[in-house]
Amino acid sequence: MQRIDIGLVGFGTVGSGVVKVLKSRGNLLKKKLGIRIHLKKICDTNLRRRRIVQVNPSLLTRDIRQILDDPQIKIVVELIGGIHPAKEFIIQALRNKKHVVTANKALLAECAEEIFEEARRNNVRVYFEASVGGGIPIIKSLRESLISNRLQKIYGIVNGTSNYILSQMAQENWDFRRALKVAHQKGYAEKRPSLDLKGIDSAHKLVILAALGFGRWVPLEKVYIEGITDVSLNDIRYAQESGYTIKLLAIAKCEAGELELRVQPTLIPREHLLSSVNGIYNAIYVSGDLVGEQVFYGEGAGRFPTASAVIGDIADLAYALKQEVPSAKPQLVYRINIRRIRKIEEIASRYYIRFMAIDRPGVLAKISGILGQHKISISSVSQKERKWARIVPIVMMTHEASERSLRLALRKIDRLESIRRKTVALRVEAL
Amino acid sequence: MQRIDIGLVGFGTVGSGVVKVLKSRGNLLKKKLGIRIHLKKICDTNLRRRRIVQVNPSLLTRDIRQILDDPQIKIVVELIGGIHPAKEFIIQALRNKKHVVTANKALLAECAEEIFEEARRNNVRVYFEASVGGGIPIIKSLRESLISNRLQKIYGIVNGTSNYILSQMAQENWDFRRALKVAHQKGYAEKRPSLDLKGIDSAHKLVILAALGFGRWVPLEKVYIEGITDVSLNDIRYAQESGYTIKLLAIAKCEAGELELRVQPTLIPREHLLSSVNGIYNAIYVSGDLVGEQVFYGEGAGRFPTASAVIGDIADLAYALKQEVPSAKPQLVYRINIRRIRKIEEIASRYYIRFMAIDRPGVLAKISGILGQHKISISSVSQKERKWARIVPIVMMTHEASERSLRLALRKIDRLESIRRKTVALRVEAL
Repeated sequence: MQRIDIGLVGFGTVGSGVVKVLKSRGNLLKKKLGIRIHLKKICDTNLRRRRIVQVNPSLLTRDIRQILDDPQIKIVVELIGGIHPAKEFIIQALRNKKHVVTANKALLAECAEEIFEEARRNNVRVYFEASVGGGIPIIKSLRESLISNRLQKIYGIVNGTSNYILSQMAQENWDFRRALKVAHQKGYAEKRPSLDLKGIDSAHKLVILAALGFGRWVPLEKVYIEGITDVSLNDIRYAQESGYTIKLLAIAKCEAGELELRVQPTLIPREHLLSSVNGIYNAIYVSGDLVGEQVFYGEGAGRFPTASAVIGDIADLAYALKQEVPSAKPQLVYRINIRRIRKIEEIASRYYIRFMAIDRPGVLAKISGILGQHKISISSVSQKERKWARIVPIVMMTHEASERSLRLALRKIDRLESIRRKTVALRVEAL
Repeated sequence: MQRIDIGLVGFGTVGSGVVKVLKSRGNLLKKKLGIRIHLKKICDTNLRRRRIVQVNPSLLTRDIRQILDDPQIKIVVELIGGIHPAKEFIIQALRNKKHVVTANKALLAECAEEIFEEARRNNVRVYFEASVGGGIPIIKSLRESLISNRLQKIYGIVNGTSNYILSQMAQENWDFRRALKVAHQKGYAEKRPSLDLKGIDSAHKLVILAALGFGRWVPLEKVYIEGITDVSLNDIRYAQESGYTIKLLAIAKCEAGELELRVQPTLIPREHLLSSVNGIYNAIYVSGDLVGEQVFYGEGAGRFPTASAVIGDIADLAYALKQEVPSAKPQLVYRINIRRIRKIEEIASRYYIRFMAIDRPGVLAKISGILGQHKISISSVSQKERKWARIVPIVMMTHEASERSLRLALRKIDRLESIRRKTVALRVEAL
């Protein structure tokens, strides 16, 4: 039976999961693939750490060249994350005509064009199923299965940490700090979770999803990003009262040749499937002109779901190598007619707005007057009774309005003497 | 640019969708694939019918040999459905070294081993993404993406007609006949819908899903099949009162080397994602030991969703052909250790049971006595007040019990003088 040698860079959580599965599922993979996938070398900076799987010490090295310069190794699996030195390792692997499997969303979001160009030049492939949605096969589905669709929208719940916190707040009535604390205790939040909570991780994944869905790598700085750190328990409750759930969504929409990319806490209707995606689960909603609406749901992170995706990519490549030609995948970048990327000020949306105002006559008239001047029309308003300090939340839902007008209006409103905190505005998606 | 010639057999609803998409998306596919997919011939028995797409009359033929015997045609797309003559056409296409794309679930469920053996002998492929779940990429996901997983369970809502009827009954409070009538009017039910309503169509799809998930083609007659024709509006309501939704599920479970396959109306917890799958939508829930729980959701039928899946398969094959070697897919049948297929009597389940009994003292004692003799323990019971004829429904939920015992018990109970209709029992899945 033919043998394909692979090298693993990064023997951490996911890396050790991959090693364990390759060991325990060697036979299953042999039966399905007709190939023996042979892990020849593992490179990591720390060779002493205890891991969930024991390997022959001769497999381990701290010298990356033992992988990158080994002509027998055909596939390099990069699982160290971050931009440097992952990028340099991948570029060198490609130059040495090795295929690459990576889970590195930050790197792809920032340097995809450079990496794929290097792969093209060397006629090798870069696969990255594990970069979005853990074990959910969203990359392959978008790239291969939905190949003939023109996509309209992608909505992703793609950050497990944020989703865990928002769902615990909603279900357990916890405030943000308490939910974050429990997330830490359960290992669902990293020590420094700001990439997750501020929406950056979701934005990385959105850039990848949008490339697959719309054929274009959008620079990260063109993605509008809002995290969940300002979502209060009150907002979650008020949204619930109006029939909505708040989720951190990564949104890509294509309309009239213009692409909108944003990450934001979003009110979505409670009956929508995405509202039922709780805890650390991820889900990606896609609408395409042929398939209609689809949702892909599963665990978005974790050792074994991610290892499953990595091994799916390894298997794809091993197959192609068995046949001695690198099996192509549909072009990622096919330049359909996207004229430009919209700025956040150019979008239109419905909004949920919470004002914190002194409870006195005439406040509501002033607020709605300013909104009216900016052509923002109100669909509902409710004043929540809160006794303390006589500052009361006033919650409004608007009809569709332009983001630019809304921002101008809120700037004026926040300068009113009776407004005592910065106003919170969240966008609403009907889906 | 390289050109791949394909032949289409069956110019009906899905066939005309495929033709239309190939026409309108030719450029998109060229950009993504680097190949021109050229529809060379369309065979159908009726060439006069009006269709949604106009084609050059020279493309059309009623003579299947113009496709099967044309050496230029590399891919045959079979969309006529049914066993004969689809089977003969496919076998002949394979013998003539043509790859085959089909949406024919009945044929695969009944003759898969013969067809795949013929394909293997001729070193060509049979792809069938459109056979389950319309445009949902479940076949590719199970076969390729989840390749390293050992699956535990598959639950599929895979028949749009049945799901439409059950959800309309639940949401609109309609009885079965009325829901079926509306389904007919909307084109969601065929003129003779018994394949759908009796669960046969779901069973066909279950056989395919189980082959992908468990590596074995189970003969259709080993699948236990119950349709939705006996589900009453009352059962739906009583289930709702206990927090359950009734869905027609195609279930495959693997436990201790034994495989269970069944299609049945099933009570599932209302909070579960599958409970929110309404109307003509399909969803497939999969649990694998690495990925955990996943759900794939989308439109399970219809012209364009199905065409999208067919074209995904064509694109996969066209790629492989571009490289002049047929790209393999992981083995479907890999014979992991499944010792046997369980019979329905051997399973264990929780049950929802509705008795229709004369409202007189002692009935409940008799029923529960018989259940007790058969070691069936009751978790809840409620007697629904119904005045007419003094026949009242008694609804019970049981703890886990053996199907064999339950059947014996119900046979005895149905012979009681006070029981006036056949007792309805539905299985409950905790998911």
